[in-house]
Amino acid sequence: MPARMPINPHVIEMEYAVRGPIPQHAAVMQREGRRIIPCNIGNPQALGQPAITFHRQVVALLEEPSRLDREKKFNRILKNTPAIADELREEDLVSEYVLDYVENMLNQWPAGMGAYTESHGPLFIREAISRFIDRRDGVSAAGLIPADPDSIFLTEGASEGVRLILEMMITNPSDGIMIPIPQYPIYSATIARCGGTQIDYYPDEDCDWCLDRSVLEESYEKAVKDGVNVRAIVVINPGNPTGAILDEKSGREVVSFAQSRGLAILADEVYQENLYGADWTSFAKLVGEEDVTLFSLHSTSKGFYGECGHRGGYVEARNAPEVEGSDISFMELLLKQASVRLCSNTVGQALMYTVINPPEEGSEPWAKYAAEKEAILSDLYEKAVMVRESFKEMAGVESFGRIGALYHFPRLNGLPEGTTDFDYCMALLEATGLVTVNGSGFGQKPGTQHLRIAFLPPKEMLEEVLPEWITFHNGYVSM
Amino acid sequence: MPARMPINPHVIEMEYAVRGPIPQHAAVMQREGRRIIPCNIGNPQALGQPAITFHRQVVALLEEPSRLDREKKFNRILKNTPAIADELREEDLVSEYVLDYVENMLNQWPAGMGAYTESHGPLFIREAISRFIDRRDGVSAAGLIPADPDSIFLTEGASEGVRLILEMMITNPSDGIMIPIPQYPIYSATIARCGGTQIDYYPDEDCDWCLDRSVLEESYEKAVKDGVNVRAIVVINPGNPTGAILDEKSGREVVSFAQSRGLAILADEVYQENLYGADWTSFAKLVGEEDVTLFSLHSTSKGFYGECGHRGGYVEARNAPEVEGSDISFMELLLKQASVRLCSNTVGQALMYTVINPPEEGSEPWAKYAAEKEAILSDLYEKAVMVRESFKEMAGVESFGRIGALYHFPRLNGLPEGTTDFDYCMALLEATGLVTVNGSGFGQKPGTQHLRIAFLPPKEMLEEVLPEWITFHNGYVSM
Repeated sequence: MPARMPINPHVIEMEYAVRGPIPQHAAVMQREGRRIIPCNIGNPQALGQPAITFHRQVVALLEEPSRLDREKKFNRILKNTPAIADELREEDLVSEYVLDYVENMLNQWPAGMGAYTESHGPLFIREAISRFIDRRDGVSAAGLIPADPDSIFLTEGASEGVRLILEMMITNPSDGIMIPIPQYPIYSATIARCGGTQIDYYPDEDCDWCLDRSVLEESYEKAVKDGVNVRAIVVINPGNPTGAILDEKSGREVVSFAQSRGLAILADEVYQENLYGADWTSFAKLVGEEDVTLFSLHSTSKGFYGECGHRGGYVEARNAPEVEGSDISFMELLLKQASVRLCSNTVGQALMYTVINPPEEGSEPWAKYAAEKEAILSDLYEKAVMVRESFKEMAGVESFGRIGALYHFPRLNGLPEGTTDFDYCMALLEATGLVTVNGSGFGQKPGTQHLRIAFLPPKEMLEEVLPEWITFHNGYVSM
Repeated sequence: MPARMPINPHVIEMEYAVRGPIPQHAAVMQREGRRIIPCNIGNPQALGQPAITFHRQVVALLEEPSRLDREKKFNRILKNTPAIADELREEDLVSEYVLDYVENMLNQWPAGMGAYTESHGPLFIREAISRFIDRRDGVSAAGLIPADPDSIFLTEGASEGVRLILEMMITNPSDGIMIPIPQYPIYSATIARCGGTQIDYYPDEDCDWCLDRSVLEESYEKAVKDGVNVRAIVVINPGNPTGAILDEKSGREVVSFAQSRGLAILADEVYQENLYGADWTSFAKLVGEEDVTLFSLHSTSKGFYGECGHRGGYVEARNAPEVEGSDISFMELLLKQASVRLCSNTVGQALMYTVINPPEEGSEPWAKYAAEKEAILSDLYEKAVMVRESFKEMAGVESFGRIGALYHFPRLNGLPEGTTDFDYCMALLEATGLVTVNGSGFGQKPGTQHLRIAFLPPKEMLEEVLPEWITFHNGYVSM
């Protein structure tokens, strides 16, 4: 007979709604040939968002360095052979700028894409990330502390960064991590899998998901009273699932709170380029000269690039924690822990490099790059507004916060007695094919109901389904 | 002040010699401009082994599907424009076969490389892997049970498969995993990090690392007497660090032992194409019709392809364990656990597909593919023999087992009193620049000393360094 054994109960207990029963039911409907509009996950390219040409040209050439000479030859032939000018066009060719860009990368990466890298990624990529962070935060103008390449750690998307950091911090059930409610379930799931304690805190929905010091203190005090050693506070900005961009004052509250309580901040900033014109301040900048411990996460999966499948990302650490009872520093331990998986994948690393190192303004590929970026971001914003506008026609639906990330998280006031947001989302799926995730999958303030929708489907699809949703909704709530 | 906290002691305790003090000292020497020959890790492309052209052409085209039309156009132009025939040659072009191959993949993978896939990877890749396994093991001829695509799980190299499976099986210190000594340290490190118990068993070096039932029983009995619940037995075949190919009889012993004790087998078979002409039997085939639980691991990192940086791999499960106290099946739990990291990287997935789906014999790219494969494997074998031959000139050095994988693990008999194999490897590094790993980094029978050397450096480099090693060695042991 096969082996029979108890399985780690932490694995059995943990939940992951984003890939849970609703999307699973959607998969069944799809097999039955019914229309499905998957808005349950921030997976833009699955819904037709194109990749940025520049990014893909670079990684394709990195995979086939021999093409550098070949493409140069094609460029030469085009110039010198008028007979084929009709057939072979400028757009068929790879710009010299891209060829030089790749050549420059390979000079710093002689073993190329097929070799394991250092466990935290090649130094030249970590250096480029540190320059990106400094540029983004205006470090030199503001006289702030620059980022340190040795405190940057390339990971398989941001997800692996969350796992690596939380596994370091959680040893037993008395180790607690504060997470915002609602939260992205990677946090609850990973805390559960590591056997730690999840400590909820509640941003204020009616004040656009702002954060008040007293809310943080209250949640902290309660945990301490329960015998929990609070290790860190997670902040997701722009928010997931809320989609809301945190105001700077709230961010400062978090820093000052973490400072006074000696906590690490785990700042999930993977949506930092999904701002749609709103202002946003990084936690690195908010921490500034303070010696507060910060782990900031970024990813190639979101923004306007949406390269989810490539699993690129990084963690930047500032003021890494002091390790009690060991001479080894936190970063050395992190490196040792990560060395077991050898390194993150090189294409994800390379994409991270291209994301934070776009073509220079005015360079050959610039115009196309900028146009693609603008088209994707303005399309996302238009769709965000379309969806939010339609909420106005749904009885009892309210949506808060400055639009960011890829999501809305509307509150569903007045669902019929005895029905939950899970029931609602399942019924919505059955009625319209729209795949959303119930608020309870992310956690929510007791007594409230929500759903999360990713505003990613093509506009025509939204134009078709939004009126159906409105009809469904107003019927559902008046049941 | 920064946060101050205890760090998970499992992370502090675990060791990973392959990236430990010796390679770290080598990095210092390299910065000082001294010659370094890194044989500490199976990272072939870092030592100049070329990638297989076919594999890279495919993944590069997958990254830039618009090139499919462009390359067809180039092919047409070449045929129709004699004026440029001198410049544009056949080898500059991508064969129609490759273009069709990629088109066929994309037809089954419409969202392409930029989208998250199912947590265990796209179905068409899992189906292709199941066909590969059946072909490899001669399933239809032998009337064996075919592989099931739903029991195949794409992972970030084999490393992630090890982590996912062990995290499921280990809940507390009384959960034990049997591992061969010597072993590849991902096993000891992951068991340590999960807080489980490592149970050593000792293959017989003098019998070419063969396995005897009594050795397995003895190690099992001892663990049970110590109150350990033994969950699984790890076998690495071909071996790492030993490089030895397990004989079929030993493999059958493992299956029958696991069967009688109700254990799962975790078969690390990542070197299954590093056989150099020797015969090898997969554990899937050895398990055959028996309902023994098996997890078999494969990877894109080794073989003749050596695509370490791309982090491709899979686990195939057979007769998955029955889960005590839960209605959810093992595979569903595995899927849930893995859904937290969303999916493995798509390029690694695609490479895994190309590795198990080479160009058909006689097709356009076949000749080149076969020649590259043959060149790499015969070069590896020649180097393996060169290194082993040189052991004969080193006093007290013996190496056992049929040559497989990428390693030798010679026994160093008669090191000077008071010196360890760590001292030896460090002195060897200082004297010659050769980076090896001390046997104690993998575990070894008490009272023995070894080192592991990856036979990857270019031949000229080995020709230069091997005589230096012989001189160093004979001086060292006569100290």
